[in-house]
Amino acid sequence: MFAPVYFDHNATTPLDPQVREAMLPYLGQRFGNASSRHEYGRHARAAIDTARAQVAAALCAHPTEVIFTSGGSEANNLFLKGAAAMLKPGRVAVSAIEHPCVRESARRLVKQGWVFDEMGVDAQGVIDMTDFTEKLSARPQLVSVMLANNETGVLQDIASLAAMAKARGARFHTDAVQALGKVAVDFRALGVNALTVSAHKIYGPIGVGALVVDKRVELAPLIDGGGQERGLRSGTENLAAIVGFGLACELAESRRVADATHAAQLKAALEQGLGSLGATVFSADATRLSGTSFFAFSGVDGETLVGKLDRAGFACASGSACSSANPEPSKTLLAMGVAPEMARGAIRVSVGRATTPDEVSRFVGALSNELNTLRGLTAMAS
Amino acid sequence: MFAPVYFDHNATTPLDPQVREAMLPYLGQRFGNASSRHEYGRHARAAIDTARAQVAAALCAHPTEVIFTSGGSEANNLFLKGAAAMLKPGRVAVSAIEHPCVRESARRLVKQGWVFDEMGVDAQGVIDMTDFTEKLSARPQLVSVMLANNETGVLQDIASLAAMAKARGARFHTDAVQALGKVAVDFRALGVNALTVSAHKIYGPIGVGALVVDKRVELAPLIDGGGQERGLRSGTENLAAIVGFGLACELAESRRVADATHAAQLKAALEQGLGSLGATVFSADATRLSGTSFFAFSGVDGETLVGKLDRAGFACASGSACSSANPEPSKTLLAMGVAPEMARGAIRVSVGRATTPDEVSRFVGALSNELNTLRGLTAMAS
Ligand SMILES: Cc1ncc(COP(=O)(O)O)c(C=O)c1O
Ligand SMILES: Cc1ncc(COP(=O)(O)O)c(C=O)c1O
Repeated sequence: MFAPVYFDHNATTPLDPQVREAMLPYLGQRFGNASSRHEYGRHARAAIDTARAQVAAALCAHPTEVIFTSGGSEANNLFLKGAAAMLKPGRVAVSAIEHPCVRESARRLVKQGWVFDEMGVDAQGVIDMTDFTEKLSARPQLVSVMLANNETGVLQDIASLAAMAKARGARFHTDAVQALGKVAVDFRALGVNALTVSAHKIYGPIGVGALVVDKRVELAPLIDGGGQERGLRSGTENLAAIVGFGLACELAESRRVADATHAAQLKAALEQGLGSLGATVFSADATRLSGTSFFAFSGVDGETLVGKLDRAGFACASGSACSSANPEPSKTLLAMGVAPEMARGAIRVSVGRATTPDEVSRFVGALSNELNTLRGLTAMAS
Repeated sequence: MFAPVYFDHNATTPLDPQVREAMLPYLGQRFGNASSRHEYGRHARAAIDTARAQVAAALCAHPTEVIFTSGGSEANNLFLKGAAAMLKPGRVAVSAIEHPCVRESARRLVKQGWVFDEMGVDAQGVIDMTDFTEKLSARPQLVSVMLANNETGVLQDIASLAAMAKARGARFHTDAVQALGKVAVDFRALGVNALTVSAHKIYGPIGVGALVVDKRVELAPLIDGGGQERGLRSGTENLAAIVGFGLACELAESRRVADATHAAQLKAALEQGLGSLGATVFSADATRLSGTSFFAFSGVDGETLVGKLDRAGFACASGSACSSANPEPSKTLLAMGVAPEMARGAIRVSVGRATTPDEVSRFVGALSNELNTLRGLTAMAS
């Protein structure tokens, strides 16, 4: 099988072989419905308890604060819609650079009488404190700001934002999907009321995530039924995936520092190469995840370039990343004030644990070739 | 490892080895986010397209009518809450024997101004047509009646019920989670607007299911975000699970007749044994799934007996099955007019593809022993 170099770890990560090994028994002999009150069910329940403790430990949360969901999107929806359902309609404020599953969940509340606010970012993609303070003064009941952005990798000072928002009476949530395994994610230290994580971004399986939530926040479930997850998320527990998620969290935490150091080295090499080719690296001056580079070349279309790199054996993402056949320029970049033409040129490289320096330098070489071809064509056409 | 005889296939089924094999590559080299526009993403997308076609084919639906969800509970919630969100509050009517994920979803609508109705069943657990007609005359906008009950295995005449409900202007949904792979489930022939299935009840993986829905039914998503599943269910597609679900559907359909014949033989032997031990088999005179027997012995507590059978190496379910540490007697039995004392005695045996006649006869022997002990104790105590 032809295996292109994988430079899209922010979209999804390969399953860690250890995680896979841990899951396999539960896809075999150790199957069971954790609600069953016999041998099979008890084994399943015990395995889920262990995983819940692992997830909680990685996040410095209490196991009873962990609600397993089908992924990050569901967890974000659960917080916003679930908390809103227990409140009288008021204001919901989210940053202008949220993943669509946060933004669209918040927007959905408008139909129920909520007022939707967006909090702006500066040119580096960092929350604009003037705007944040102003939006807080309107007393939103729900506020959500992501810990690390999936496109630029920019990290926000969530502890400060959460403290300010809570002081104004808001329930504060952070989407930590892209942060986990890359920077410390400490539920207590962040002081948030709720936090979202997803397994498939940390070398765990797709199809499982969690909302970690402070018990003072009342939530209505999105999925009613058998009463699993303290009645907050019904449905037969996804045993194998939850077991994998537990171990993936443990490994993410134990390897975090080494992974981040490795990614930082790769990023330095990559961005040096990008600089020499004349790229603009977005959010270059902000505190960013070490594995993510989001960049563009003026006059070069991102989709086209990503397509060419794909054929050259490098899998990276274009600006309209994450989901979609959506050709719109990245909302994150637009919120940062990047011109639409430039935003349309955006490419994201997100490296991972197994990425090598050689892959990065081969990439820079391939990029250089593609740019020469594209620029040659442009020169000929003009 | 000690492996008790598994008599709880209605709670969950072991993963078919072929399904497991089909999934493994997607938990390895063939990982990918189906929204990514590179080699990995395209492979993932193609695999999901294939699975969608397999699911659709097994259900005589069109692939574009299949919305993948995280399971049966989510699919049932999506229909009830999603369709309700697009309508002015009206009436929602469900049968009195629905799985909690249907009943509680419908009940949740009451907070939004809906009127909740329950349609009764007769002593055999079959929909009471007088009550059904009466409830329809109140013009519910949403009606849901399950195809096969998870406890008794009773099958309803969904085609007739759907035709009646639709003639009255209702949108009709059926929960076919327990029916698939055991009886023919033909979306077109049933004439329903929507239908729910779940992979882990048909030897597929936990964590994936589908709502099959007629495009004339407008739905709001439960999970907003990246816009996957035609915008009706966002979140990174659960690639490996969806691939497994596709194959499990194909196998369920190809083995359906053989599986049903096998299960019918086992059930005949089991129920003959149960009769000789003095059991009351619930819904004995109704048309039932061939693999499900729900029964009780007067004066014997179901939980206690299930516990003893578990220790004797037989995994079966008690009346308050499926989910929960809930000690309440089965709502299905109560709706059938079974006395609470009798309902508290209920035990469910659900056999599967790999169940052997020998296991059934050993079970009848073990049951006889346990009953003798329990009755001896009762005799001593009185
Ligand atoms: C920041 C962020 N939040 C949420 C999600 C959604 O997570 P999931 O794919 O598990 O639904 C993603 C990835 O798609 C993400 O990057
Ligand atoms: C009739 C019925 N509907 C729905 C469900 C829920 O399906 P899932 O476990 O996939 O959420 C079940 C099983 O738990 C069931 O038996």
